This record gives sequence, C-alpha cells and structure tokens, in this order.
Amino acid sequence: MPHTPTAKETRAPERPLILISNDDGINAPGVYRLIDYLADMAEIVCVCPDSPRSAQSMALTVTEVLRLDHHPDYNGAQIYSCSGTPADCVKLAMRSVLERRPALVIGGINHGSNSGVNLLYSGTMGVATEGCVFGVPSIGFSLTTHRLDADFSRCRRWVREITRKVLENGLPDGVCLNVNIPYDGPEPQQMRVVRQCHTSWSEEYKRYTDPMGRPFYMLSGHFVNEEPESTDTDEWCLSHGIVAVVPVLTDRTAPLSTISFLE
Amino acid sequence: MPHTPTAKETRAPERPLILISNDDGINAPGVYRLIDYLADMAEIVCVCPDSPRSAQSMALTVTEVLRLDHHPDYNGAQIYSCSGTPADCVKLAMRSVLERRPALVIGGINHGSNSGVNLLYSGTMGVATEGCVFGVPSIGFSLTTHRLDADFSRCRRWVREITRKVLENGLPDGVCLNVNIPYDGPEPQQMRVVRQCHTSWSEEYKRYTDPMGRPFYMLSGHFVNEEPESTDTDEWCLSHGIVAVVPVLTDRTAPLSTISFLE
Repeated sequence: MPHTPTAKETRAPERPLILISNDDGINAPGVYRLIDYLADMAEIVCVCPDSPRSAQSMALTVTEVLRLDHHPDYNGAQIYSCSGTPADCVKLAMRSVLERRPALVIGGINHGSNSGVNLLYSGTMGVATEGCVFGVPSIGFSLTTHRLDADFSRCRRWVREITRKVLENGLPDGVCLNVNIPYDGPEPQQMRVVRQCHTSWSEEYKRYTDPMGRPFYMLSGHFVNEEPESTDTDEWCLSHGIVAVVPVLTDRTAPLSTISFLE
Repeated sequence: MPHTPTAKETRAPERPLILISNDDGINAPGVYRLIDYLADMAEIVCVCPDSPRSAQSMALTVTEVLRLDHHPDYNGAQIYSCSGTPADCVKLAMRSVLERRPALVIGGINHGSNSGVNLLYSGTMGVATEGCVFGVPSIGFSLTTHRLDADFSRCRRWVREITRKVLENGLPDGVCLNVNIPYDGPEPQQMRVVRQCHTSWSEEYKRYTDPMGRPFYMLSGHFVNEEPESTDTDEWCLSHGIVAVVPVLTDRTAPLSTISFLE
C-alpha cells in the first residue's frame, strides 16, 4: 500500500529565522537593504529602535517602560519598533516577540564604521553581542559612511556570503562577528579575518553658551589609527578596500598573569 | 653659599590625582564612601551623572548636549555632575575639567554586583573601560547589594589596598579591573584574581496595559551562574565571601582561528 504523505511531510521545510535590529532606528535605510539582501534566504523579524540610538553600546533600559509597535511588513519581513536601546530590542524580541529561536541575530547595516575602539560604543555591535549572550550566532554589519543616502549595494555580496557561511557553520560559543565594509573606492573584492585595531579619538568638546549664560557641551573629534603600520587590523583592511571581519568575544577577561602584583 | 630653596622646591610633592565617576549618579552614597576611603591618598575630582544611569554600558551622548554643574566640595574632593552617561562623564572630565592627567580613574562604589555578564552592561565598568581607553589605569568597584542604605564599610580595606597597589604598579595597557566585594556574610578576609563567570539572566518582560489599552513592558528576571562548579570565577568568589578581581580587556578580539571557515 503506497505511503500517503501527511500534512507535515508535504509542508515546505522551515526556513531559518533571522532576527534583525540596528542602532540607527526604524527609519534608517540600512536595515531595509539588509532585509532586501536576505529576504530569499530566511524568514525575517525586525525589531528596531523607534529613533536613532547610535553609540548606545550594550545599554539597557531598566528604569523606564518599553513600548513595542507593530508596523506593516516590508519585503516579507515582520517589522516592529521599540522605544528602547539596540540591546533592549534583542532582549524584548527574544523574550516576547519571536515564536521560535532564531538561527541568527544580525545588527545593521550600520551607517558608519564600527572598527577599532568604536566596537565598544557601537549599538550595532550591542545587537550582535546581545544575540551572542543568548547563545545565537550573531553578526554586526557596518558600511563606513554616515551618509543616510549612501548606496549600500556593495554590501549585498558580503552580507549574503557571510550570512550563508554562518548559517552553515554556526559560530563558537561566546564569539560574534564585527563586519565592516569599506565605502570609499572601488567595490571590495576580498574579505579578511583580522583583529580590532588599536585606535583612539582625538576628542574635543565644543563649548557653547545658552541664552541664560550657562555653558553646554557637544562631543566632536576625529578617529586616529594608533598602529597604521600593522597590516592585520580592521582599520588596515578598510583603508585598503578590503572587508574586515573581526571575531569578537563576550568574555572580556584578560590573562590573569597580567595583574600578578595583586596576588 | 647655601642653596636657597625655590618656591617650587618647598611646595609639598604633588599628590596623585584620581578621577572618580559612577553610574548610580551624584546622589548615590557609594561614591561618597569611595571619596572617604581615598581622601588621604590622593587629590580627587568627581564627575558623576546627575541622576542614576545604571546599565548604560559604554553608551555615549552624541546627539544631545551635555551640561556640567559644579557642586560644593566634599571631604576635599571637587564635585561635578554631568547630564550624560558614565562614559560621557569620564570623557568630559578628561577633556574639559581636569587640569592634569589623572593617575587613576575609578568607577563606583556601585550599588549592586557587576560580576559575570553584568560586566557588559555595567556603567561602573563603562567608567573603568573609558579610563582604560584613555590609557589611564582604571578600576571599577562594586558592592553586591542594591540597597541604597547599605553599609559600605567592608569596602574600605579593599578599596584602599587595591588602589594603593595599582598606584604603585600601574596596569598593563588595555587592561582595567572589575572588583566586586561580597555584601552578605562576614567581612571578606581575602581577594582573588579570577575570570568573568559564564552567567545569564533568565529574563522575563512583565507586560502591562496602559489606560488607553496599549501594552508596555518592563524588564525583570534573575541571574544564573551557568558554571556553579567552577572555582576560578568571580561568581564563585562572591558566593564564598571572597573579593573578586577580574582583569578586563578593551580589545575584544577572539582568536582568529575560531572562524577559520570564513577564510
């Protein structure tokens, strides 16, 4: 007697679920390009901050309430906005939005570089680090320009290739990826796995005076590569037209011997 | 002819300068206890957030302006409040408040533990990490209770001992300290240099409904030690009455070989 397939057997195999967030907020073009580039590879749920939350690092909202709003689908993806930080978006999505565990958490595509020390302040990498804390393979993608009208098309190949490889291979526990794609110059032809560059900001606070005569301040400054000769850093790659992939730890412990004078 | 000392030679030797900040804000008792414990060891300038900024990680204020207010001295220390995050306080202090480079940057004393994964969210460790990014030896101190009326006296010995040793020995480039002091039980009799424990939060978002019928959420949950058998972690120390000192890196690069499948 021939086997009659059950409803379950005839259903298409379940596509991987990808959770997307960012730090530029629900209105930033970068997140919609990310959805476009991955729409045929996965089911996508997107939970983004309701306004820009740049440089929010791993900040969490602990004393205020969070709002969650559901928007019309975009290119097949479910879209939500949240009143919190990038890390809040991932936590709230994981706990209260997603109906199954995602195969990946992706932050981006960020408008602006997250190379070097910027990693520590980055809300995009806050998304990826929070996903990693949940034990989900996680990636942050950034394009090295702050232009809101930037052409993201050069990201498509690298977003798809890296996402596909991580879907296939996973990532080690406690490791997420910081991917920066150079914006200037010709389209990048290669990527490299490199380390976080030693960089700094030569900051200045611009001092203003308000109408009541009281001072206020705004941060400005420029980014400095502290080791321009090193060829194994994310900054070196970006200044040579190469996509930089840095594997990033959530465990920040230094070798214990570095502070043996305390023992 | 006898040498007549110049004014410069007769001036008392300059005391080390310590910059203090926190994430519990200018009104939290912990920062005043920290000043009390160090007042005889250093000149102190304190720049704290003007209200609580818990779980702000390394967040920076980039789209809003910063206000800086000068308050009356406390126990010989200069006191300022800033409208920004803990990391903002350190940056603004370094760039626009301090008249010389500090010998140390210290965050705390925090009300609540910053062990395990909490390190990533901690504003106290945002202070220490930011100090470390500036190349200044930096420490975050936390007492493992959230009680605002907590007795901090057990911290005195450890704050003084660790601060003195770091003033004498410095810290390696790119390494700061995360010091947690157990609150429960008898006064700690020892400290250990240990690693960041693998921990997690079993979070839940409590869901509410506002008067208009719309939902909102607040974060709750409890902290889980994922490796309770490991004896070389900060969490193990804290649950055994031992002061935990974790050396913390600003470079988060994982071993590149962990993602060799991307090459």
